[in-house]
Amino acid sequence: MIQNLVPKFTVADLDALMRATFPQAFHDGGPFEITEVFPSGAVLQLNPQESHLRYGGTVSGPTMFALADVAGYLAILAHVEGAAGTVTANMNINFLRKPDFASLYARSHLLRLGRLTAVTETSIYALSDDTLVAHATATYSIPPIKK
Amino acid sequence: MIQNLVPKFTVADLDALMRATFPQAFHDGGPFEITEVFPSGAVLQLNPQESHLRYGGTVSGPTMFALADVAGYLAILAHVEGAAGTVTANMNINFLRKPDFASLYARSHLLRLGRLTAVTETSIYALSDDTLVAHATATYSIPPIKK
Amino acid sequence: MIQNLVPKFTVADLDALMRATFPQAFHDGGPFEITEVFPSGAVLQLNPQESHLRYGGTVSGPTMFALADVAGYLAILAHVEGAAGTVTANMNINFLRKPDFASLYARSHLLRLGRLTAVTETSIYALSDDTLVAHATATYSIPPIKK
Amino acid sequence: MIQNLVPKFTVADLDALMRATFPQAFHDGGPFEITEVFPSGAVLQLNPQESHLRYGGTVSGPTMFALADVAGYLAILAHVEGAAGTVTANMNINFLRKPDFASLYARSHLLRLGRLTAVTETSIYALSDDTLVAHATATYSIPPIKK
Repeated sequence: MIQNLVPKFTVADLDALMRATFPQAFHDGGPFEITEVFPSGAVLQLNPQESHLRYGGTVSGPTMFALADVAGYLAILAHVEGAAGTVTANMNINFLRKPDFASLYARSHLLRLGRLTAVTETSIYALSDDTLVAHATATYSIPPIKK
Repeated sequence: MIQNLVPKFTVADLDALMRATFPQAFHDGGPFEITEVFPSGAVLQLNPQESHLRYGGTVSGPTMFALADVAGYLAILAHVEGAAGTVTANMNINFLRKPDFASLYARSHLLRLGRLTAVTETSIYALSDDTLVAHATATYSIPPIKK
Repeated sequence: MIQNLVPKFTVADLDALMRATFPQAFHDGGPFEITEVFPSGAVLQLNPQESHLRYGGTVSGPTMFALADVAGYLAILAHVEGAAGTVTANMNINFLRKPDFASLYARSHLLRLGRLTAVTETSIYALSDDTLVAHATATYSIPPIKK
Repeated sequence: MIQNLVPKFTVADLDALMRATFPQAFHDGGPFEITEVFPSGAVLQLNPQESHLRYGGTVSGPTMFALADVAGYLAILAHVEGAAGTVTANMNINFLRKPDFASLYARSHLLRLGRLTAVTETSIYALSDDTLVAHATATYSIPPIKK
């Protein structure tokens, strides 16, 4: 992890940004909830809805992918101004244990923050007992700052 | 690619199985359509719906993940009997170009088919002009055959 | 990480095993040195030799790959009896910062330990100042125990 | 694959560059031999030496990593002027079948060639019978062109 990187934005700042930019996913009663910003990282909670169910009574893989993807995006946005245009270039995800169909949270932190790219590491846990259910690393492209 | 692996199931077989198992995603007018089964592989088309839209007028990353994930699953199911319980263990996906918000197709083939695991490689293309927009490799766990 | 997994073998046990199995890499004055076994993990140090040099005065990528690969292997061997036949099935590695041509160490721990597969996460640091220089996740196939 | 990308350099050009830059690996009687440049890609052959042997009579994982890594690097160098400073940012490699301890070749092509990054896909085959033994995708950082 990159030590001592002080966040520039709060949970409330990021929440307002996400509600404005991704209103389908971020709204009252929606599936995603930003619960923490910490030095070099952020935590995103998923309260799964019926569309996130997979056969077998578990949270689907694409849903966990989305959770890791957005958590990493938020870890970047919390530390970089004007980075809303950041896009995912690569993600590698390991599905470790089949979660129950219940709330999960993704804790993501920056492994590297460059001027044009960032690398994040994200662990997804069951909210009920903190069991690790998936793990991901991702690379994002950060758009050049317009001056 | 594994050469000369003869499919055991047809597009119609797989379509019937998917409609029974994943009715939210596979139904008339649904987003997914199995369009081809070929030696060692399968092709899955996505006709994106509003929930697959990402800010910027493109197909979202989780949607492309889902497309690659299901296409690899189908490449396995087309060649293995009784493998519906197959689950994704790992996926590595590269997003190469931002697609338009329009139909995509994923062409997936088996790199390795073992008794308990399979490795697939999947390319995602824009249907309109065959531009490569994403590329993925994945490992799946195949459940042991009950005897 | 998998909590509370008690190692079954010590640094000395693993060192003896590696000297017997991989004598080119593990010998007095050799590049690799097992420095720690801890619950769910192990630490492997690299003291680079001239063959590990890359143009630009840094440790080569394949050397860091080897370091992560062997560290994950040792994390498994420390916790599983009779697993010397374990082989790497997949590795995903991110090179984060160019290290100096000097000693590195890899801290690897188990994200998942199944009967036939294990997933490890490994961080590679510069020994001089603990800077994170690379990060890897890997999947290993563990051979079935002969009875 | 990126269609119709015409190489700017030949096998002889790349060979001369590699002998000058990486003389340990590229020299008469050395392990690596560039055998082909084709539109959007290149082929690199490995003639394994004793240091590439792994317990079990096979080519070691780090050696196959190195082969894929250098092959992707050459695929880029064949198509971009002044890119010798290109470095690997990420590699994901799947080991599919245990090769014999004999010559292998890596066929690498560009999935994406941007101004500052490139993504390659590489298949490693046994030279004797063209069996696919490993598969990798990688991201490289290309240094900005000095003007």
